[in-house]
Amino acid sequence: MVSPSPFMNLPATIAWDDDCLRILDQTRLPHETVVETLSTAQAVWRAIHELRVRGAPAIGVAAAYGLCVAVQRARHLSLDAFRGALKEQAVYLDSARPTAVNLSWSLKRMLRVADRAPVTDTPALYRALVEEATRIHREDEALCEGIGQHGLPLITAGCGVLTHCNAGALATTGLGTATAPIYTAHREGIAFRVYADETRPLLQGARLTAYELQQAGVDVTLITDSMAASLMAQRLIDVVIVGADRVAANGDFANKIGTLGVAIAARYFNVPFYVGCPSSTLDFQTPNGRGIVIEERRDDEVTQLGGKPIAPAGIKVRNPAFDVTPHELVTGYITERGIVRTPFDANLAALFGAAA
Amino acid sequence: MVSPSPFMNLPATIAWDDDCLRILDQTRLPHETVVETLSTAQAVWRAIHELRVRGAPAIGVAAAYGLCVAVQRARHLSLDAFRGALKEQAVYLDSARPTAVNLSWSLKRMLRVADRAPVTDTPALYRALVEEATRIHREDEALCEGIGQHGLPLITAGCGVLTHCNAGALATTGLGTATAPIYTAHREGIAFRVYADETRPLLQGARLTAYELQQAGVDVTLITDSMAASLMAQRLIDVVIVGADRVAANGDFANKIGTLGVAIAARYFNVPFYVGCPSSTLDFQTPNGRGIVIEERRDDEVTQLGGKPIAPAGIKVRNPAFDVTPHELVTGYITERGIVRTPFDANLAALFGAAA
Repeated sequence: MVSPSPFMNLPATIAWDDDCLRILDQTRLPHETVVETLSTAQAVWRAIHELRVRGAPAIGVAAAYGLCVAVQRARHLSLDAFRGALKEQAVYLDSARPTAVNLSWSLKRMLRVADRAPVTDTPALYRALVEEATRIHREDEALCEGIGQHGLPLITAGCGVLTHCNAGALATTGLGTATAPIYTAHREGIAFRVYADETRPLLQGARLTAYELQQAGVDVTLITDSMAASLMAQRLIDVVIVGADRVAANGDFANKIGTLGVAIAARYFNVPFYVGCPSSTLDFQTPNGRGIVIEERRDDEVTQLGGKPIAPAGIKVRNPAFDVTPHELVTGYITERGIVRTPFDANLAALFGAAA
Repeated sequence: MVSPSPFMNLPATIAWDDDCLRILDQTRLPHETVVETLSTAQAVWRAIHELRVRGAPAIGVAAAYGLCVAVQRARHLSLDAFRGALKEQAVYLDSARPTAVNLSWSLKRMLRVADRAPVTDTPALYRALVEEATRIHREDEALCEGIGQHGLPLITAGCGVLTHCNAGALATTGLGTATAPIYTAHREGIAFRVYADETRPLLQGARLTAYELQQAGVDVTLITDSMAASLMAQRLIDVVIVGADRVAANGDFANKIGTLGVAIAARYFNVPFYVGCPSSTLDFQTPNGRGIVIEERRDDEVTQLGGKPIAPAGIKVRNPAFDVTPHELVTGYITERGIVRTPFDANLAALFGAAA
């Protein structure tokens, strides 16, 4: 079902291999490609906490395998004692990034298997847990595949695609979300250009998106965020595809800071603007973008770069991590079930069966 | 005529002091405040070439004084020999930055004085040259003052002003161009906020604009370029004021990359968008923005920061230094003679007497 990875030169974001969890350390990219083997609960906790594995879908997969790692040493215990250890380790891992929704979601799903699996001994329960983690992993890959297939028609020969931040393969265990149509088109042999916004302040576009597209052999060009409008004016951009952190019921969405400016410029130059996102990103409890709280982060993300000051000492800073793009600027949502177009409130609810 | 400088804590961009030319080294800001004394033609040439003095108006003033420095040692020569030395030195200084329009303009004006001054000895001609350089200096200050006075009504108590790049005091010998209304309003005791875009790739907003406004006691907040639209969405920006590198006859203008994106966002959120610029920036020979050639600069400005790589090795890069904003996005040009509004072609020509 899942096609071969386009990342010939890139280790898997997350791999489960002979009862070992291996992750690609994203804090050292693009300068060092380091695969780390996580063989204790503490090592898994630290990898998630320190963003060595990042991106909501990837965190969910890492946590599921991580829980298996955490209880490997308890396999000699009785079934009841093993279930007790499992619950303890799940609480512990869940504390690695308290606000990451996919982390708790994935751990809860694993605990449900432990409660319900029709097994009579500990090794069988351990195997059931590994199977569930593998299922979560495969589902994530399949969601990305679905977004890729539905987004494929948006990318045509010779076109230019702009993306912002990293909603890429590195944030998932598959083709990424915003990048899924890009990799799918590339796999189909379509020749096109991608422009990656560097994405200040944390440079996820430069460090991660430019890197993973380059490794996959996609024709990618890095630009500063301030150049996107100018490239649209030169008619170099035919479609914008970004990811989303949260989509409200009316189609407003939050994503990395800078997305709003890209969406406004796209509208000005009549460039179609799409959001690639799995249905897990939809939040029908939030009626519109005004209900989305924006995290303000530390000043030194703006005033320093690699520990080096790039601004005067003591300068005041604003550092919102996300912005909210109103639904009126969105051409469509590329989901695993198809492209959702306006009116978003009705069409999102119809396809994903909520609200009504 | 010229009011006291608001830059209590900041040395002058350029000072002429006891027959010595002193400049504030802009390459070392904001981390070091170094005033350099330039006492030879070679030193002046290097300071201009290496951007230690930068900004079109400031370069013009530095070149005029620099020519005086260059011929100081020839004051014992005959009038004819002195004039010969003067021409030689002007050619030499003009080669420091071949594309800087104000550099040649200023040197030509100095040579005209040498040709026409009613003097009979060399010391008198030297004094006439110093007087002309001082006049160019005072005119630059007065242009900034004029822009400041005409732009003053745009800044009201409690308002938020956004600027991009550095069209500030450091680019001139006065109040700057885009910053002139800001400093004028600050001097008038008006309380307001300024937001400075950091201006990737070269960070002139973070390094220079944030610094000079902070030094002058203006309430300034640094943001990444990608945050401007989000701040407008939050209604924190009431007016945008930027500078210009060149204004075409129809009112299209070129300025630092990123200006176009700011202008488009300002239009989307109905925020007035002004350009502060002296009449020397008007180019009636260029009918519209399509005629403005955009300089593409080195890749490493985007891929490195302070010599440190911030992107994958070998990544393709676009690096246009400027973009062109169409006149339809401009609310008005704040010039030394008043604010010019639409229709720009007719109104610019009427005020500055060209074209017709």
